[in-house]
Parts: sequence; C-alpha cells; structure tokens
Amino acid sequence: MPEILVVGSVAFDSVETPFGKAEEVLGGSATYFSTSASFFTGVNLVAVVGEDFPDAHITSLSKKGINIGGLRKVPGKTFRWKGYYGYDLNQAHTLETHLNVFSSFNPEVPEEYKDVPFVFLANIDPELQMKVLEQVRKPRFVACDTMNFWIEGKPEALKELLKKVDLFVINEGEARELSGEASLVKAAKAILGYGPKTLIVKRGEYGALMFSGGSVFSSPAYPLEEVFDPTGAGDTFAGGLMGYLAATGELSEDNIRKAIIFGSVMASFNVEAFSLERLDTLTLPEIKSRYSEFKQLTHFEDI
Amino acid sequence: MPEILVVGSVAFDSVETPFGKAEEVLGGSATYFSTSASFFTGVNLVAVVGEDFPDAHITSLSKKGINIGGLRKVPGKTFRWKGYYGYDLNQAHTLETHLNVFSSFNPEVPEEYKDVPFVFLANIDPELQMKVLEQVRKPRFVACDTMNFWIEGKPEALKELLKKVDLFVINEGEARELSGEASLVKAAKAILGYGPKTLIVKRGEYGALMFSGGSVFSSPAYPLEEVFDPTGAGDTFAGGLMGYLAATGELSEDNIRKAIIFGSVMASFNVEAFSLERLDTLTLPEIKSRYSEFKQLTHFEDI
Repeated sequence: MPEILVVGSVAFDSVETPFGKAEEVLGGSATYFSTSASFFTGVNLVAVVGEDFPDAHITSLSKKGINIGGLRKVPGKTFRWKGYYGYDLNQAHTLETHLNVFSSFNPEVPEEYKDVPFVFLANIDPELQMKVLEQVRKPRFVACDTMNFWIEGKPEALKELLKKVDLFVINEGEARELSGEASLVKAAKAILGYGPKTLIVKRGEYGALMFSGGSVFSSPAYPLEEVFDPTGAGDTFAGGLMGYLAATGELSEDNIRKAIIFGSVMASFNVEAFSLERLDTLTLPEIKSRYSEFKQLTHFEDI
Repeated sequence: MPEILVVGSVAFDSVETPFGKAEEVLGGSATYFSTSASFFTGVNLVAVVGEDFPDAHITSLSKKGINIGGLRKVPGKTFRWKGYYGYDLNQAHTLETHLNVFSSFNPEVPEEYKDVPFVFLANIDPELQMKVLEQVRKPRFVACDTMNFWIEGKPEALKELLKKVDLFVINEGEARELSGEASLVKAAKAILGYGPKTLIVKRGEYGALMFSGGSVFSSPAYPLEEVFDPTGAGDTFAGGLMGYLAATGELSEDNIRKAIIFGSVMASFNVEAFSLERLDTLTLPEIKSRYSEFKQLTHFEDI
C-alpha cells in the first residue's frame, strides 16, 4: 500500500523568470509534492482538475507510481496561476489566480486511502485540511503547509488544525506573521506551543531551520549558479522530506534531519528548470550524489 | 611576537536598536576585530584616535593582550558613528558619521610589526589598505574587508588590492555589487577571478558562505532569541576567524572551515549586547561550548 496521502492542488502555471517563460505548464502543490515523494515511496493523490486537464498528464503522474484514484475530474476549468519572479527569486509576484474548479474543492478521501500512515496537507483552506484529517483513521504522522492568505483570513481554523499535526512546514515570513514575533527563534517557540511537535521554517536560498523540542537544525540550500524557476520548491522540499520519512518509517530527530536534507536535495533540482522538467529526468544516483554534496558543503571538524 | 596585525578604525558609536540604546560607546572595526582575535592570539593594532579618547579604553585594550604601540593619539576628536537598527537587524541605518581624526588617517606600521605573519586590513580606503601592504614584509596570510562606499568610489584601487590578498571577507550585497552578478555563486567566481584565493560572504542572520577553488562551505548563524545589537558583528567574525588561523598556523581548507565556525561563534556572542560588553565577560570555555553547539546545529548523518 502506498505510504503517503497528499491533498492539495493540481494546476496550470504560467511563469516568467529572468531566464525565460513557460505557459500553462503542469504545476500545483500536490503535483510537485507527489512527484518528489514518488522517488522514495508510493503516493496517493487527492485533488481536483477540470475537463480541460489532458489525460497525458494523468498518465504521466500514474507512471511515476502516484495513485491517481483520488484525482477527480469535474466540469469546468483547471486551477490556473500566473506569476513572475525578478532577480530576488525568493519572492513570487502573482499576476492572476483563477481558482476555477478548485474553488469548490471538497476533498473526499477514497476508502482505500484512509489507513495511509503518512499524511501531507498541502496549502489549502485550513477548514478543508481539517476535513481531510476527519476522514483518515489514525495516521502515524501528519504534516501540513499553509500560506499568508490563510494566516490572515482563517487564523483560528489554522490553530485548531495545528493541534492535530506532527510537523508544520512554512516559510520564514509566514512564521513571523503567524506568531507576531520578529525573532525567528521566538516565533518557532510560539508556533510549537500551538501543537506541532516539529516546525520546519523554509528560507529559500538560505535553506531551512528545524525546531523540535529544545533542538534546532540548520540545513543550507544548495549553492546553484542559477535558480531558473523557484515555483514548487517548497512542495518539492516537503515531498522529498515526507517521502524519505515514509520510506524509512523512522521518526527520530536524526532521521528527520536526513529527511530535511533529502527535501533540500529535491528542491535544489526542481528549481533548475520550469515545471517538473528537471524532476522528470532525475535519477536516484543523482539524488544520492547531491546528498553527499550537502554533507561536504556543511562539513567542519570538531575541536 | 603577536601573530596578527590589524589596521582599521577605533570609534565611538551611538546606537539604537529595538531593545535599547547606547551613547558614545567604544566601537570601530579594529576594536571589534582585535578584541575578538585576542581570545586566540596576540594582536598588533594600528589605528588613530583623538585627544578625547580616554586612557581607560587604551588600558582596557592593552589588558586583553592587544599591542597598542601602533594606536596613535592625535589632535582633534575621535571618529564617531551614530545609527539605528529596526527589526530587520541585517540592515544598519546611519544617522551621522563624523570621521574627525580618521579623515586624515595615514596608517604607519611600526617597525616591530612589519614581520607579522597574519594581516587584516579592516574596512578603510583601499588605497590606505594598499599602503599598509607596502609597509609589511612578506606576510604569510593577508585578509581584507571593504564596504559599498569603496566599491562605488574606488573600484579600481580595490581590485588592485584584491590581487594581493589571500582572503576577502565581504557581505552578500557587496559581493553582488562588486561583481555585477545577481547569482551569489557567479558573483563569487568573478571575485575569486580578481585574485583572492578564498572569499567569505557574510549573510548576517543566515550565516556565511566560503568559496575557495571549486569548494563551497556553508556555515549557519547561531539561532539567537534576540540579536540585541549587530554593530561590529562582521569585524568580530573576522577577528575570531583570523585569531584561530594565526593561533594554529595552519591554512588548509579544513582549518579555514573551523576558523569560520570560531568567527561565527564570536559574532554570535558579540550581538548579545551593546559595544564590547559581551566580549568583555566572555570566557574560552563558553567559546568552546558554543562551537560544539554549532556542530550539533548542523549535524546530519551520511546515507
């Protein structure tokens, strides 16, 4: 049985970066997450698309070992996002968001997915994230993401959800906004107080910080010559992280640290090209080789 | 014989941060550098102060093992800087700069310092930095810092200087400005092309990156609850780094990596209080203990 359930978006993205542009390419949080996680373990995908979504994309996801039994096709158009990045590639600028069929997305977890041990609630309305949790039975490990839109619009629903998750993955600005603390260390303490056992703060080109109990882990980002397109980096990170955790089944802090490095490795590949282009050609030896490069990148001797 | 020669500023700083304010406290690049380095080795200080500079400060530097034979007191007032930091503590806002006696600073290296093996040229006019290099005899290892003012005002003099230094330490924005490259990896390649064997890019709360040959090292910053006052962090970092290198006398990449961690350790203490307050009470066991915390902060297992 596939080890992971992910609920999120499948979308068409139109993106412009200083290095080029892509029109109506495959994107969405659940797409990036599940493609990334599929390198490590099986994934059950729950999402919605419109009638315009080509069967070729569905076949392509399926071929990666992603179970698409929970991907519903409904009347209407698929979610579309249009945006651009300047030279500060940490900052996406949204030009257009058309939720289309996603606006009435009411995730239904198929019966055969309800006992999946690892659950990832990608960035959607926290009330819907909670509805997903109400449908699954005793998951072993639940992780979720969110965004400033929900932090501002539904902070109470988000805090209710956080009581029920093991791992919360958000970016730096969101951590500060949610907690009202300028200091990231204080922000992390406050957020851990809401419920999650572990918090991972994504910092784009500066890597990630994990806070868990009294422990802090600092992971670097891979120093790339060019970040070609950062779209999907956060979900690709989460996919590598959850994929490795599910594949190994071990939830010790040491294993979560390794999982964070695998997540960082996957994200570093994803940003090398538009859409899923780089992940589509990626191999396991390349992943392992870059993991070793992260080891070399951070190595220093004891005194 | 003390192992390090540092040439830079000794100043009075007036600083306001979100956590408090300090008026006319001891500061300056050479002050922070030499105090930090003095935990590891002897330091020869070359700088200039005015008649208003209290003997108590000079005695205090001397008691740290800093040789103040090159600290000249001349008619006029000591260099003064006034600034503030908002919640983004990576960004200093200058309110007033009074160069005073520093405006005619023409560093003279005393005869007995001319054979010192480790030289640090703190952030001053690159033409003066070059004049210092012309006075020393066959230094084993030369490092320098600079700032946007010189990158914009004297780029050619700076590039001439860079042909003669082993290690160049600057911040992220300066690296981009000097090279004209938005990508930090490309910026580093360009800057290494100007001459230095090693480049260290300081990224404030995000740590530091070292580029040397084909190798990259990522050092985190220590996750502090509060950065009380970042003034002097960069020079304190350089002081710990150069102090450790000079004390061990080993210039391998592995040892430079350790030195970067010691520099990061020293900077993490310095920002905990105004001026040199924290360094003045710091002990070697505290330094070693925080080094071990950096090890724990970055540790992850091999695959």
